[in-house]
Amino acid sequence: MTGPAEFRKLAALPLTAERFAPFGDVLETTREHRQSMNSSRFERFANLADVDIGATSGGRPAISIARCKMATSLPYRLDMLERHPNGSQAFMPLGGFQFIVAVAPVGESIEENEIQVFVTNGRQGINYHKGVWHMPMIGLQDDQEFLIVDRAGNGGNCDEHFLDEPLMLEL
Amino acid sequence: MTGPAEFRKLAALPLTAERFAPFGDVLETTREHRQSMNSSRFERFANLADVDIGATSGGRPAISIARCKMATSLPYRLDMLERHPNGSQAFMPLGGFQFIVAVAPVGESIEENEIQVFVTNGRQGINYHKGVWHMPMIGLQDDQEFLIVDRAGNGGNCDEHFLDEPLMLEL
Repeated sequence: MTGPAEFRKLAALPLTAERFAPFGDVLETTREHRQSMNSSRFERFANLADVDIGATSGGRPAISIARCKMATSLPYRLDMLERHPNGSQAFMPLGGFQFIVAVAPVGESIEENEIQVFVTNGRQGINYHKGVWHMPMIGLQDDQEFLIVDRAGNGGNCDEHFLDEPLMLEL
Repeated sequence: MTGPAEFRKLAALPLTAERFAPFGDVLETTREHRQSMNSSRFERFANLADVDIGATSGGRPAISIARCKMATSLPYRLDMLERHPNGSQAFMPLGGFQFIVAVAPVGESIEENEIQVFVTNGRQGINYHKGVWHMPMIGLQDDQEFLIVDRAGNGGNCDEHFLDEPLMLEL
């Protein structure tokens, strides 16, 4: 029997738009997206995410807030990834805090050696593209809150994939 | 000639979902919306906003970040309200800070005595329903950031209404 100490470890890489591009968008303020707004009283960083709410499958966009009630300590034992086949899903931290995400490419199943882990810089949010496998969100501190923009509407929109062998995620 | 000191003053009321209901949604965590999420690691406050991105007019949902570059001090001289006839528009503060909004009901024009002003509690965001007249966002401190969820796509989506006489907004 394999003990936890022997599970494969996977260290989180700093999140960048380039690294995350195969999986989704990084919600952050970058020079390329900068526009003026409201008579220059604001800078607007526009169109940060490809929001896909599955309109053809009866979906509509929804805004929610998720608050961490049970903080997770690292290393974190990752057993399962999920995907939303009918829509994208964006998470934006409300207030500056870091979080980690694990992702795997769109596909019917997961090649476990293709799982990647990222850590945000404390100001970034992320948007998973439709069908991208991802770890259910964890919070590293209680009461951390995310704004979520995803799909509401009829029809199932969550598949789960359990790993043959857990991974230990760490910074 | 009327001097600024003589313009009508309008004091902001504390924002509540009930007061704001004719104009839109308040993005906040309330008991009624509470659900469990991710094996109870999170509470989710779901479906906080009626996000209308004008799909029938070629709209799609967009996520942006707006950062205040020119803080506004109070009292604020309000000259103009705008509306987005083809979609809703949500603003969520990234980090706890208060902001003020001025609104008037949906309609071809504005009854200036129907303008209402609200101040948030520092954790609330707001979602203007499609067509609701509202003051262009101001920030009370530089570098305050909002996440915006609104409509992208073709077609004009902003009308402006200039007031016959400015209003002075204050807390």
